[in-house]
Parts: sequence; C-alpha cells; structure tokens
Amino acid sequence: MAKKVLIVYAHESPASFNAAAKDAAVAALTAQGCTVEVSDLYAMKFKAAATTEDITGGVKDAENFCYAKEIKLASEEGRLADDIKKEQEKLKEADLVIFQFPMYWSSVPAIMKGWMDRVLGSAYAQEKRYSEGIFKDKKAMLSFTTDCPESVYSDTGINGDINVTLSPLQNGILNYCGFQVFAPQIFWDPATGSPESRSSMLEGWRTRLQNLCGEAPVYFAPLDYFDKEKGFLLKPEVKEKYASKECGLTVGIHMGKPLPANSQTKAGLQSLS
Amino acid sequence: MAKKVLIVYAHESPASFNAAAKDAAVAALTAQGCTVEVSDLYAMKFKAAATTEDITGGVKDAENFCYAKEIKLASEEGRLADDIKKEQEKLKEADLVIFQFPMYWSSVPAIMKGWMDRVLGSAYAQEKRYSEGIFKDKKAMLSFTTDCPESVYSDTGINGDINVTLSPLQNGILNYCGFQVFAPQIFWDPATGSPESRSSMLEGWRTRLQNLCGEAPVYFAPLDYFDKEKGFLLKPEVKEKYASKECGLTVGIHMGKPLPANSQTKAGLQSLS
Repeated sequence: MAKKVLIVYAHESPASFNAAAKDAAVAALTAQGCTVEVSDLYAMKFKAAATTEDITGGVKDAENFCYAKEIKLASEEGRLADDIKKEQEKLKEADLVIFQFPMYWSSVPAIMKGWMDRVLGSAYAQEKRYSEGIFKDKKAMLSFTTDCPESVYSDTGINGDINVTLSPLQNGILNYCGFQVFAPQIFWDPATGSPESRSSMLEGWRTRLQNLCGEAPVYFAPLDYFDKEKGFLLKPEVKEKYASKECGLTVGIHMGKPLPANSQTKAGLQSLS
Repeated sequence: MAKKVLIVYAHESPASFNAAAKDAAVAALTAQGCTVEVSDLYAMKFKAAATTEDITGGVKDAENFCYAKEIKLASEEGRLADDIKKEQEKLKEADLVIFQFPMYWSSVPAIMKGWMDRVLGSAYAQEKRYSEGIFKDKKAMLSFTTDCPESVYSDTGINGDINVTLSPLQNGILNYCGFQVFAPQIFWDPATGSPESRSSMLEGWRTRLQNLCGEAPVYFAPLDYFDKEKGFLLKPEVKEKYASKECGLTVGIHMGKPLPANSQTKAGLQSLS
C-alpha cells in the first residue's frame, strides 16, 4: 500500500552523513511507491522559538500568556502562523514521520525541538494523549547520528543507557501525541569510522527501509492502564498484573524495578513478556 | 561569600509564574550580596538554531560541516558570533547558572535548547567532560514549571519518573560540561492551583534561595569510574564495588538494577549509600 511519508530533517550540509541517510530514505521509500515530503529545517530557516507571533489576530490572554493553551485555541480557530499551518498540513497527510538529525546534547537540535514545540504544540492535549493521542493512526521514528560508539550509551557506559536518553523524546513527545513509534535508527559515530563502515551503515538502513512500514512499534503502556480520577497513576489491577514481573513496564514507568532491556530501541518487547 | 549568578530565562510574559520565579531569585540572591545577570532569551530574540553563521570568517570544512567541531575550533580562535561570545562571557563570570523555564515536551523550550547548543557547544569536549568537564568549578540548576501534578511524573504515573525525564538534561548536558548540579526546583502545575498555592510555591523557592549556594549537588558517577581504553565502560573494580548494592549508580548507569530513587531530584544520595 502506498504510504505518505514526511521526513523532518535537520542538517545544514548536503554532504553530511545525515543528508545521505535522508536521501537513502527518500530513494528507498519512493521506489516502494510512497510519496515522500521533506521538511529541510535549516534550508527553510525554520523559526525555532515558540512565541506569540505564532498566533495571528492576537493572543487571548497576553498578560498570562501560556503557549500551550493559546496555540491549541488558535489551531481550533485557524489562527496559526503560516509556517506552522504548512507543516501541520504535511503532518496531516503523513502516515509516517521520520525525524533525521545529529544528536545534540542528548536530544534533537534546537531547530528540530522548535518544530516539535510549534507544529506539535496543538497536539498537546491532556484529554487525548498517549494511546488515545491525536496522531494514533500515524507512525513516527527517530533516525540519528551519534558521535560516540554504542558502549558509551550502555547501562554501564559513561553517557548511560540510550533507552533513558530516548525516553523523553519517544515517550514524552511522540507517544504522547499518539504516534506508534518505530524503533530508532541509530548510526553510531559514523564520523569516526571508515568510508566502508559508513557505506555499510547506509546499506543497513536501506535494507531496513524495505520493510519499515511492516515493523511492530516500540511498546508503551496504554492510556487505560491509568486512573484518570487518581492522578493518572497505574490502576491497582494493572500494578498487580505486573507485580511479579522482573522488570518495570517501560523506562519511565519502571515501578521501582529494573528497566525493561532495550525497550526504547527494539520493537514490541513488553507484549512478549 | 558574594557569588555571581547567571539566570537563563525563557518565558515571553512578564506576568507569568516563570517571571515571578525569576524575579524572586534575582531579589533573594541580590539581597545576599550576589551579582545577578539575567539572559532573557525571548526579549533578546536569542537565535536558537546552531548554524554556520555562528562561526565568523568561514567554516573550515564546509562540505562536511560538523557543528561541534567547528564551534570548538572557532572558540579557540576567537571566531564565534557576537551573541555567543556575550553569553560565554557571562557564563565565564558565573559561579552559578539557573535555567528558569516552563517545561515544553519533557524538556526545555527550543529557544533554551538553542542557548545550550550554541553557548555550551564549545564545552562539548570528549577529553574534558563530566567530573573533569570545563565548568567543574561552577554550579548549575534547572528551575521549571510543569502543567501537571507530581503523581503524573512518578514511576507509576502516566508521564513516567521525572528522574528519567531530567537525566538527559542534568546528566547529558549540565554534568557533561562539568557543572555541579543542584537539585531542580520544580513548580508542580502552578497554573491550576489557587493564587495562595502559587504564593506558597514562591515562598518555598525564596526560602530555598537563602541557602542555595551551600547545598550539596546531585550525585553523578565520576569520570575515573570509566575505562578510557575500553569504550568508557565502568571499570571492573567499580562494577564489583557496586555489584551488591540494591540500585544502579545513576538513572542512566543503572547496571540493569532498579534506578536509585530520586537521584535527579534530591542532593547527594549515592554518597550516603
């Protein structure tokens, strides 16, 4: 089935490994019959800061300006800045969103955080979130480069477990919006390797892209596990169900137990346990 | 002892709770004899995106542009954009840096991530990091508002453990640069509370500010726990030392064990165990 894919891309240099990874995705997905749209954030000089200017026709409460509230209201009333509207149109069409970026300070570069703050801002809705989130019929994934090898990001490595690093992005942003999240594509330190190792990383990515749309998503706890009336804590029956398990439910909802291994980097693990 | 404090502040509205928290810090710290400088990012229209324009006199390798490498080189050669230089001057003077912001998508707003990407960019040095990081004689802390109560950010709450959310910011950025990190000041959902509850939160912050500079920092694993020659993994003797402990070392370096409770939100816990 032909899919629509949006690649949100953040690297300034067309000769970068990130550009090559983006180009590989465009080529492989197009060859499968997908329609691929790229938002090249640096080329677009995408505005990163979330400001009152994002709302046309004036904000409702200038004195106590709350971006999340105002952007949601403006979205309902069609009063969003043009650049946000355009990105939201692309997003509306997309079945899959791929974020392609070099990891900066354990997260996305500021320009991409700006895309998330501004374009996803109106999806920040407490009544429709996580498995009931606005984009629950869409998939999303992170594809990024690091500047150090995998060991450094292990649970005994100096940067700590990459599953922890990814949790705020994959759970706190993508899963919050409802996206089903594919396992991330991590390119470990391509800059340090040989040209052959870089080619081989890209080849692995091309191979994965062949069946990407058929992959199972990463596991997250469904919304109905939580008690709305009691501070959105796990329901007693759910706590009981998982009490005897060796590991917590997810990285964040760990219940004081060891984190489930690779839960943010491998697909569908909890469903197997 | 008179200290120099830099407050990096990200809220557009002077009537916001974040503004009040920032003002309370300025007043309390000034009253103690500290010199306080505020970088009001929105008022400054601070450029968030890390680009080639941050380097004056041309980049060294335009084709394979790598921001981290270029910014470090430009810093050594005095070729940084003026707005970065100015912030770095403030940072150089500061004994303590307070980041005051509303949490956006489990992290800092894009404009503040931009400050981190651009101003701290040249501190991203693999040879001088963590407990040997460039700013090891300075303190830093996060002070932020959430839009939901504390239960939601617990280890059985729907957003997951706040200690996980904070780890990429406090460990991946502040600790990486060498900062000794004070426990965060978290204002839980001030917008939903009564005026009295907001006053009481600010009063608590003012009280804390009286002795802030004397607080112990949050615990992180020291650089010499890791083997430089072996992928920066924990040294065997360190692993052995902690093998019998109930919990992992930190949130990220959890060694497959339960996370140490409140390790990112309370000071000096590991040293007590």
